[in-house]
Formats: sequence, C-alpha cells, structure tokens
Amino acid sequence: MPKISSGNFFEDFNLGDRIIHPLPRTVTDGDVSLYIALTGSRYALHASDTFAQAVGYERRPLDDLFLFHMVFGKSVNEISLNAIANLGYAEVHFRQPCYVGDTVRTESEIIGLKENSNGKSGNVYVHSQGYNQREELILTLKRWVMVRKKDSSIRSGIKEIPVLQKALPADLPINLPVISKIEPSLSGSNLFWEDYSVGERLNHPDGITIDNSDHTLAAKLYQNNAKIHFNAHMMQKSPMRERLIYGGHIISLCRSISFNGLGNAMWLYGINAGTHANPTFAGDTIYCYSIIKELIAPKRDDVGLMKVQTIGLKNMTPEEIETPFDEHSKYHANVVLDLDYTLIVPKKQDNK
Amino acid sequence: MPKISSGNFFEDFNLGDRIIHPLPRTVTDGDVSLYIALTGSRYALHASDTFAQAVGYERRPLDDLFLFHMVFGKSVNEISLNAIANLGYAEVHFRQPCYVGDTVRTESEIIGLKENSNGKSGNVYVHSQGYNQREELILTLKRWVMVRKKDSSIRSGIKEIPVLQKALPADLPINLPVISKIEPSLSGSNLFWEDYSVGERLNHPDGITIDNSDHTLAAKLYQNNAKIHFNAHMMQKSPMRERLIYGGHIISLCRSISFNGLGNAMWLYGINAGTHANPTFAGDTIYCYSIIKELIAPKRDDVGLMKVQTIGLKNMTPEEIETPFDEHSKYHANVVLDLDYTLIVPKKQDNK
Amino acid sequence: MPKISSGNFFEDFNLGDRIIHPLPRTVTDGDVSLYIALTGSRYALHASDTFAQAVGYERRPLDDLFLFHMVFGKSVNEISLNAIANLGYAEVHFRQPCYVGDTVRTESEIIGLKENSNGKSGNVYVHSQGYNQREELILTLKRWVMVRKKDSSIRSGIKEIPVLQKALPADLPINLPVISKIEPSLSGSNLFWEDYSVGERLNHPDGITIDNSDHTLAAKLYQNNAKIHFNAHMMQKSPMRERLIYGGHIISLCRSISFNGLGNAMWLYGINAGTHANPTFAGDTIYCYSIIKELIAPKRDDVGLMKVQTIGLKNMTPEEIETPFDEHSKYHANVVLDLDYTLIVPKKQDNK
Repeated sequence: MPKISSGNFFEDFNLGDRIIHPLPRTVTDGDVSLYIALTGSRYALHASDTFAQAVGYERRPLDDLFLFHMVFGKSVNEISLNAIANLGYAEVHFRQPCYVGDTVRTESEIIGLKENSNGKSGNVYVHSQGYNQREELILTLKRWVMVRKKDSSIRSGIKEIPVLQKALPADLPINLPVISKIEPSLSGSNLFWEDYSVGERLNHPDGITIDNSDHTLAAKLYQNNAKIHFNAHMMQKSPMRERLIYGGHIISLCRSISFNGLGNAMWLYGINAGTHANPTFAGDTIYCYSIIKELIAPKRDDVGLMKVQTIGLKNMTPEEIETPFDEHSKYHANVVLDLDYTLIVPKKQDNK
Repeated sequence: MPKISSGNFFEDFNLGDRIIHPLPRTVTDGDVSLYIALTGSRYALHASDTFAQAVGYERRPLDDLFLFHMVFGKSVNEISLNAIANLGYAEVHFRQPCYVGDTVRTESEIIGLKENSNGKSGNVYVHSQGYNQREELILTLKRWVMVRKKDSSIRSGIKEIPVLQKALPADLPINLPVISKIEPSLSGSNLFWEDYSVGERLNHPDGITIDNSDHTLAAKLYQNNAKIHFNAHMMQKSPMRERLIYGGHIISLCRSISFNGLGNAMWLYGINAGTHANPTFAGDTIYCYSIIKELIAPKRDDVGLMKVQTIGLKNMTPEEIETPFDEHSKYHANVVLDLDYTLIVPKKQDNK
Repeated sequence: MPKISSGNFFEDFNLGDRIIHPLPRTVTDGDVSLYIALTGSRYALHASDTFAQAVGYERRPLDDLFLFHMVFGKSVNEISLNAIANLGYAEVHFRQPCYVGDTVRTESEIIGLKENSNGKSGNVYVHSQGYNQREELILTLKRWVMVRKKDSSIRSGIKEIPVLQKALPADLPINLPVISKIEPSLSGSNLFWEDYSVGERLNHPDGITIDNSDHTLAAKLYQNNAKIHFNAHMMQKSPMRERLIYGGHIISLCRSISFNGLGNAMWLYGINAGTHANPTFAGDTIYCYSIIKELIAPKRDDVGLMKVQTIGLKNMTPEEIETPFDEHSKYHANVVLDLDYTLIVPKKQDNK
C-alpha cells in the first residue's frame, strides 16, 4: 500500500462512485474576518449582527460564496488534484444558511466520464454535496474537470455525459427567513427587485489587484490543495510559468466588485453555469460588468429572483469591452470569468 | 436613477448635510487576530484576557486604532471615494471602549466646504461619529479631504472653513475602568507617566517593511474601499504609478513600532492633528520617532495624559533625521507621518 | 534609565537567570483560521469540532505547532532580539492540549552560556516554558542562539554548556483523552502506527511557495519581533540582502506538506532536535521528505510514538536528493530544515 497519495487519475473514477471527502471544517469568526479581508466583501448581512437581525435573522449568516469555496475545496484532493483544467460549473444550488460554529463537509458522486480523443486525459463530471453537522444539505454543485490519465495507451472509450440543466429551476425552495424591509442607509443600496430591467448592463467601476499572498491565503483557508495555486517552483516549468489563481477567488472578487450596483442582492440562489475563460496571475487587476438576464416573478412577497451574467475582466475596464467574445467567437483574452447565476433580491416594501 | 454610484463630488456636498454611512460591522475575534498579524501590535491589553482583567477590565477591549480604521473606513464611500488627498485629521476623540461582538457604524456631518482656486477641486471638512449597537458614541473624528469637482467651469466660490481645535481639551471624560497597578513583567514596559519628560525624544529602533498583500488586506478588512489602495491597473496611469498605502495603516505601524518606548501607553485619548506628509508604497520600510510634547496633570489617580508627536519615516532610521522638515521648511521626502496625539499613560502605583 | 530597549546582549545573561516574558496572549478562533490560511494545515483535529468530538475531545484543540510559535515568539524580545543565528532546539515537549480562549505566557531560564573564541558573540542556552491561564505547563523547549556581545574586548571566557538529551525519553506523560477509532474518510489518511516501518522514507509530493506578506503575517501573529523577519531596509545591508523567513514557519509548512503520508499523526509528542540548515527567503518553494527513525511500543492501547526525521528543502523536490548532506558532510545548499521529532500516531482499532 503506497503511503503517499498522488490523487486520482481518470482511470480511477467509475460512474456512480460515491466519495466521502475527508476533513470536516468548523467555520469560525476567523473565517468571516479573513473572507472580508481577502475579498473586500461589503455585504452587511454577513458582517453585522444588527443588520442581520433587522433583516430577519437571529445573527449573521455566512456568505454563500464562502460556503461554496469550503464545499468545493474539500473535493479537490479526491477529484481534481490531477486536473488539467476546471471546465465548468452547473446546477450550483444554495440550500440552507450556515452560521459560525457550523461544521461543513462534502460528499461527491461521479455522474459522467468522457475519455478525450488524445488518450491523455478525460473529463470527469461530479456532483458534490455539502452538509452541515446535522447532516442537512447546505449546498449542491456539479462541475466537470479535465483529469490526466495514468496510461495514454489504454483506451476505454467511455463517453457518459450527464444531462446538465442550463439553469436551475425557478421553483426550488428558498430557505430564508421572511425578509423585512431593507434600509438603504444600512445596506448601502437603494435598488430592489423592481428596479432592475432585463437586458440592462451594469459596469461596476471598482478594480481589485491580486497579489500572491492574498490568493494563496484564500485557497489555503478553504483547504483547497490544488498544486497549481501554491507551487511556483513546479509552475515555472509549466506553460503558464507561474502560480495560477484559484478561479473561485475570481468569483468572490467579482461579487465584491459588483456590490456597487447589486448591493441589496445579498443571497445567491444558485450558479447556473460558470467558465474561467482565461487564467489570472498575481498582479492582475480584476474588473467586471453584469447583465440582467431574467427577472423571475417571485412566489414570495419579500424577495424575487434575478438571473445575472457577470463577466470578469483582467486589466481592462468594463467600458473598454462590448461583448466577452472576439471576432472568432472565442473569449476575449482579457475575459477571465463568465458567470451565469441567480441572485435573490429583496422586493420593495412600503412602510407599514 | 443611475444604478452605479460613482461617489460624491465636491458639488454634491452641502454645509450641514448629515450622512448615515451604511454597512454596520460586528467586530470579532477574527478582526483582533488579523489586526495583530497585519500591524504587529503587541499591547497585551488588546490581546490577553488575563492581562485585561488584571488591569481592571472584564475582558480584552479592542485596540483604539482598529476602531478608528473601522469608523473611518465606513465613511470613505460617501466622503472620500473621489478624494485627491486626505489633508488632515483633528479632534479625534476616543470615547468608549468596545469589545468583540459590538457592532460599529458611522454617521457624518459636513462642517466645512472650500472651493479651490483652480476650480477643479474643493476641500470637504467632515465630522464623523462612530456608534456601537447601543447607539453609544464610541469615537468622533474630524478630517478634511480634497475632493474632485464634477464641473470645473462652474464656480460656487464657497469658503466655509470650520474652526478646528489645535488640540483636544484636556478635561474630556475618560471612560476607562479604574486601572490597577501595571505589572511590567506582563505589560512589557516599566515606564509610567511620571517617567517621561517634556521635550524628550524616543528613537524607536524597529522597522517594518510593507508588502502589497498586507496593506490591501488591512484596508479590505476595514471595508475602506478607496480605489487608490487596490487598483494597480488604474494607478499605473496616475503620477504615483502604483497603489498608495492607506495612511491609517502607517499610523498603526508607527503605533506598533513605538511600543518600544511607549509600551504602557495602552490607550489613545485622542488625535489632535495628523498629516500624511508623503505617500508610502509596497516595499517601503516604516520607522518612527516620538517627542513628548506635554504632560497633563491627571484628575485621576491612576492615569495621566501625555501629548506626543510621532514622526513616521520611510527607508530612513530615526537616527538619520533631526527634524521632519527640510531646509525649505517642507516635510523631508522620507517623512510619511506627522501625528500629534494624546496618550493615556498609567501612573506609578505603590504596592498596596 | 534608557526608555528604549535594545534587547539583551551576551553579557546581559547570567547562568540561572529567570525571565518572565511579558505579553500574555489569549488564543482565539481568529488565530486558528489564520494558522490554517498561513500554513495550509489540513489536520481535521484542529479545524473541526465534530471530528475532535469523534476522536474523544470536547472540542477542537489548538495545533501543537501554533502553540510552539506562540511560546517561542514571546521569548524572542528578551532572548534573541540580538541573535545572529538560531542554532538549535532540543527537548521540546508538548505537555497539555490548549483551546480557544486559553491565555498563553512564557518564562525562561538561562541554562548555559559559552563565549565564542572570536570575542564578538556567545551562545545562550535557554529553557523556555509555556503556561496557560491556570499556570499549567503546556509546553517546554530548550534552544540555543548565538547572541552578539556589547564589547568584544572584554572576555569572560565563560563556557557552561548544558547537557541536552538527544531525544525525549519515551515515557513522558501523554495528556490526550482516550483516542477513539479514527475514521479515514474523515481524517484523510488510512495509515496507523502499525503501518509504518523503521527506515522507510516518505517523499511528500506537495510544494508551497512563500511570499513576503504571508511569512511576515505569521511572525507578527505570533508576536515574534525578531528584526530580521520584518525589516527589508536593514537587511539590504546584511550579507543576506533580504528578509529572512522565521524558521518556525518552515517547520509549519513542512508539517502541512507531510500531511500526505502522515495525516493521522495529529499530535507532536516533542521535538528532539532541529536545525535550520540554510536560510529561506520570499519566493522559495518548500518541499520535504520524512524518514521513520523509530517506532516506540506504546504503553497505551490507543496511540503509539513514532520518531521521524523530516528534511525540509527549498526549490528541490524530495526525488532530487538522497541525503541532506553534500560530499563534504555539510548540509546541501537546498536543505533548509533537519527536524528530529516524535509524533503520536493512533493505533489500529477494530470495529467494536
């Protein structure tokens, strides 16, 4: 029995395999502060007990994206340690608020396998589920990654591609308390669900430059141990030449940047699709813009759903780009994220 | 209604305007640890429950400067997002100890406006007040910033400059518990109020080098979203060419550095005046020296007041400079901070 | 009386001196999160209440190495502020688990003094002891450092070298609760005490690159104020030319890296000897390998002891080096750590 794990290769996965990822993690106030410091998040819901109580919570819930990184991070060692690329996300659904003191763990199921024609790699489709210490489902996500093969000479020809929904259904349960009237002087935004229109574009003005210590601190905090983020010595010999920034960190930075324009959209309902269109490295400055894709008539009186596409850019302001694609219909070299997600946005409430 | 806020310009302010800054923030143990890691603070009062209890507290109070950064940080989005320069501070008064679990928020009043003769900018004078969740005033500060105008062709000629006190009055309330005898073997200093003399100069020997990740983590922790600190892509086109370090971070570093010489001066009574004489950038090493300006006879038996001037330097030791000014009576190019503040210093207590 | 402390020089120490180090420090959840973010530690015992409870604890104990850094860090100001080199460790014994909320302080005794023949420095041997707020001993360590003399012309000729044990005795008390069966699907490792063999070598595959912000944040968190770690301006004029990374940070990184191979060895019994063979600087990538030196038959049914040598490397993988020594029996230039320590490893337990 080898004592050193070298992670799973494409041949190690079988359709239907269930994996219990180790290393449950209790979330603390230290994580909350670090998440704010690492991402620049300014949503008061996650940072202020008084605000959370005014909205309808007993205390601050954790940021949905922080939970995403924790649940995702736990799956890396068994799923994507030998990944060549993270190809995409789908059906990411935020199910349950979590709080400081909760313990998060992850399980995964292999839902698809496709050997690539070059014989050197294959795509692994995985359905990961995050649980809290009461075994309540807090978050589900599907993703697919290109994983190295151990032996390129042996072909299995497997091609089991799962059907992935293009968008989450709009009628999934929304486990929020009844949301009270939001006070713009506290939330930092006076925009509510009724204020947005399909097709409108928000050019978020802020830019955040990433340095090596902050993105590596973030990935280590999430216990995401993918080597490409940490090992400059190894990466020098790769085509990228340097450490690659964890794509989830880019999602978090775009979320912080989009606070100016989406400041009352405090909750993620889900992520419908996500692509890291180009890599990011230390020194890059991240910008983003958002397009409102759909407003979904709410069943609840207090909140509505809003489908949004956020395009993350490096070293280019939103004003400098019209569409994320170049003349060959490929992503523009400065586009680093194409995220299709659904936000929960509070509705206007009259004074009662 | 524009959905993107581009911050306030000089024309947006009116004398007497009151602004409730959004984003109340609950302070946690994560903030305390990060503040220590980011600044190198070594005051046991803020880091040790046993020490705080021996001094007279129920538990560790927060560092006064951490609260300053939080209260200040909350005011940036509405006051100084379009600032060209932070010109000064006055009448910063620390009113009330805060503890982990408290929620901090800020309100401001516009107390002065002066259009600059070039028509391109004006100075905004603001009085900001920090409150805890019980609406108790924890901290007040006045500052003035040079803010861009939207339209340089329209002149208002406004010139309403408030009278700012050169120093806080010495008889403001001091909301500390009765301070017990300080044990030098625990506090790290055997110097008490009686040990200092007016005019004496302390050349603090330590130097701390700043890197980009640590100063940006600090500013993000305080939710200070001034663009000049974060956006290297934008700053490349500015005369500075790179990200400017948040001036408050320099104040905190000088406070940590001055522990060697002022280690028992655990509390700030207030800041009388402060100037960021030159900018600091990643890679700069901060040093400082302090001059005792005034010893104020205490009303209390346990503590006295001590007015101190601390000069922050970059890439130059205190031994290498005699006064902060050059031969043209301008700040020496290596002077980065001129801080006039009043410390609360414990008096000698005999064994009882 | 000088108000500025310039630290102790060789002449300031006397055999038998007892030093109470100041600055007791309450450990918080913020420290736990920062330790994970700074080191990449993945031991679930320190990060998960549910895991700790399944193992036999009431809640997460602190990482032994975090406590080592805290106890060590408190001793720097009085012992090694003027150190030229940290020469070694011995008899480091972890005595007692600590928890969030505990307050740590350090005392030291001078147990040896040896003037060096060049007259410029001497070696100081110190026995440091860490206590919690109940005055329980949590950690003892011996170390020796080369400290500058004030005056090289005056010779004392002192040569009192203490006898240091080459290894901790195997029968020291082990203050752990009775350890329940470890679940590999939670701990991340299926290797138990019985699975290791003397002489076997584990080439841990991970590498972690260090940047300036992360190692300086770590040292500041531990309130270790040794100037060589922080002051680039001073270090430019030294032979090293740049800031030297705190050796304890390298130990922590090697511990994180060796998780892959030693994942169930959650506890340190002690450190028998340790040498920082070469300096490390920002930009270096740390790797390591481990050799099992001794398996010590446990008195307890639940855990055994395992003596391990871990060799830390910079910018070189374990596969590229056979022994830590070069042809002149000196440490290879890429070896940065030679650590001889004893781990507590759970034994196999049948299902009951």
